[in-house]
Order: sequence, then structure tokens, then C-alpha cells
Amino acid sequence: MNLYDYGASSAAFRVRIALNLKRADYTRIPVNLLEGAQRTSSYRATNPQGLVPTLEVDDGKLLFQSLAICEYLDEVIPEPRLLPTDSLGRARVRALALMIAADIHPLNNLRVRNYLTDQLEITEEARLSWIQHWIAEGFSAFEAHLASAETGNFCHGNTPGLADICLVPQVFNARRFECDLSSWPKLVEIADHCCALDAFADAAP
Amino acid sequence: MNLYDYGASSAAFRVRIALNLKRADYTRIPVNLLEGAQRTSSYRATNPQGLVPTLEVDDGKLLFQSLAICEYLDEVIPEPRLLPTDSLGRARVRALALMIAADIHPLNNLRVRNYLTDQLEITEEARLSWIQHWIAEGFSAFEAHLASAETGNFCHGNTPGLADICLVPQVFNARRFECDLSSWPKLVEIADHCCALDAFADAAP
Repeated sequence: MNLYDYGASSAAFRVRIALNLKRADYTRIPVNLLEGAQRTSSYRATNPQGLVPTLEVDDGKLLFQSLAICEYLDEVIPEPRLLPTDSLGRARVRALALMIAADIHPLNNLRVRNYLTDQLEITEEARLSWIQHWIAEGFSAFEAHLASAETGNFCHGNTPGLADICLVPQVFNARRFECDLSSWPKLVEIADHCCALDAFADAAP
Repeated sequence: MNLYDYGASSAAFRVRIALNLKRADYTRIPVNLLEGAQRTSSYRATNPQGLVPTLEVDDGKLLFQSLAICEYLDEVIPEPRLLPTDSLGRARVRALALMIAADIHPLNNLRVRNYLTDQLEITEEARLSWIQHWIAEGFSAFEAHLASAETGNFCHGNTPGLADICLVPQVFNARRFECDLSSWPKLVEIADHCCALDAFADAAP
């Protein structure tokens, strides 16, 4: 498999963790977002959104969107499982994953940060407040969900899964953007616990 | 089942379509977003994110995040299927759904529109440009994906599924925000085709 990838991309980071957990062989094809490689017509022919990651599977088929890619990997390489076996547990893990992948990350990724600066011409201070605001909104809800008895050493029980795969890159991002994480001790504890595993550490930017 | 719901919420609209397609019985519990009912402590006790939808299933268990809820419904009420049976097809449909549910809608929902006006104090014109920009970015990529041979009368083949469930509320939203949809004829054709079905029409705001 080939992963169209960029080190600092949270979405690509998620897929790297999933591939590592599944012990899948893959080749990283760098797409330098800071140089605009994602906006070239050649990359748009690969991924019309001009985003990373894209996963090219062995028959040349292209897969998009990090959560869809992780679900695919979980179907074709069943062990270790990224989702619980029960439907209610699967719903909980998917919801936790989406709280980050839909409701935090898309508001703070590179294209949005660029729009805030280039089109809306807001100050660097206002931009940092924007980033920190959406992380705080999302992490406060995420921390509340982690009070559930279903939480273990990881977001759901005692094995890493899809929610952890989304959490770790977002915590990485939050630190990069100087968020004070002290209000969310459980999620930080889980993220740090994940980072002790090679599958997470080796995927880091 | 009880659905904590708001008519004009795209995310709640998705779940209403899914419930209708599955012919599930449910009771709508209104959460008036314009009046701020989602931010009350009583609703936050139900849904820590303070967002709709929340689905309360029959044992009182609460489910969150529209895509996680749709996946749950697809697991517990298998027919009609919202996802294809093959993993590559499932990856395609999930990716299309996420292009809207992660990369368009969260940028334009009420809480973000409020932040743009109240915190960043941008003009109404700049706010409308923001909304239209992210819809155009997302719909252009979505339309490109629909050029695939896998597209039929619906986003994937000839039965409605998870991608259509996300597309229809977003097209509804785009019209509400005065987007010129003429650049994306296929996506509009599919959305209009969906709206001829009772499951979609009955779910509309």
C-alpha cells in the first residue's frame, strides 16, 4: 500500500497509527502541504479534495478520508480490532472519533488557518484564540464522555482503538498550539499512555 | 427511540432520513438551537457537546454524532442497507459522507457562524463568503468523485445510502445560503432524486 502523507497532518497521522497497529506494510509518499503540493493538478487527480491522506491499496484503488480508511483497514485486517464487537460500543467509539475528526480538526486545519489569515485578515492572536476555542469545546465534551465506566486505560476499554487514533494527533496539535491541557487530565493520560506504544510513537510527525 | 432534534440541523436531518429509511419508530424531542436550548446544563447532561442529534435507544442508552448513529442503525436494523456489502464500496461511501460531514458542515454550522459574527465581528457579506467557500470546495471534490462508474441514480449505485443521507441536508443548506449550484449538476440531480422519496422528504426541516 502507498500512503500519500504529510508528517504534521493530523488526518494522515491517524492512518499511520492504524497501519502500524495492523502491522501493515506501506510506503509513504510525501505531499508537502506547506509548499502547496496538495493543490497541484497532479495531486488533485489523485485526491479531488486536495487533502491528505490518500491510501492506494494493492489493486491501485484509491481510498480517502482518514476515518473511512481506518474502517476499511479494520475490515480487511481484522486483528487487532480498532472497534469493539458490540454495536453500542462501536457507536460510542465512532462518536468519540467523530467529536475530534469532525468537530475539532476540520476547524483548525491548514486550509482554514490560511483562510482566517489571508481572507479574513484576523490577527495572529485572534487566530490562536480560534484554534484554542474549538479544541477547548471539543476536549471538554470528550473529557465528560471519558467519565463513563466504559473508559479504561484507553478511550474504550483496555486496548487502543479508533477513538485513541483520533485523540493522540489532536493532543499533539493542542500542544503545538499552546493549549493549556490541565482541564482535561483523563484524555491527556490516555494520549500519553498511547504514546508509550510503538504503533503511536512511530507514527508521530 | 427518542431523537433529540432540531428541524434545521443538518446533522439531525441525516438521522431523521436514516430512521425513515429503516422504517424505525421514533419520537422527536425538540431542542431549539436558536433559543440556546442546546447550551443548558440539562441538555449538556444528555449531550456534553451541546449539539444535536442525540438518539436515546430503547434501553435508555444515549448515542451521539450523526454518522455514528447511522452506522449503529445500519447494524441493528440491517435492511435496507445504508452501506454496500463490499469493503471498497463501504470505504467509498464513508469517504463521500465524511467529505460533507467532516469537511463542509462543521465549518458552517450555527456555533461557527455565531463565532464569526460575535467574536471575529466579520461582516454579513464576509460570513456568507466563508459559508459559500467551504461548500464550493467540498462540492467540487464531491462532484469529481461522482464521475466514477460506481455512481448510479444515487451516490453509490441505485439505492440510497449514507452518502445520500449526508448530501441532501448539505444541498438544502447550500440553497439556504444562496449558493449557485450550477457547477455541480450531478450532485444536485442525485439530491433531487432522493427528495422524491418519502424517507427524505418527510425528514426535511
